[in-house]
Amino acid sequence: MKQTFSVTGMTCGHCERAVNQAVKNLDPAAEIKIDRSANRVEVESTQPREALAAAIAAEGYSVAP
Amino acid sequence: MKQTFSVTGMTCGHCERAVNQAVKNLDPAAEIKIDRSANRVEVESTQPREALAAAIAAEGYSVAP
Repeated sequence: MKQTFSVTGMTCGHCERAVNQAVKNLDPAAEIKIDRSANRVEVESTQPREALAAAIAAEGYSVAP
Repeated sequence: MKQTFSVTGMTCGHCERAVNQAVKNLDPAAEIKIDRSANRVEVESTQPREALAAAIAAEGYSVAP
């Protein structure tokens, strides 16, 4: 299921990789697309939205509810 | 010897860690202070200035000459 998150605070490629890795740690099969300039993170995953959002937030980024 | 560099492009804590690690890879004994808001990197190291600047630049940051 594709889930889209609005994530603020990603400033550089390291941040993209941190978000990518956080999602992959939760769901190794996830497919992730990040458009940093649009603050958009798209995740194709079977994980619940709350868990994905929490994993991203745990890296220090703000995830819109 | 303390050497100060003006480094632009560090946007977040990941960037600070990348610069720190790049210097440490070159000189594990180096002491590094980074003031990201001031674009300032201070390095206490016996390594030549050019080598330190190159290591930082190799991470993708601009180092003032």
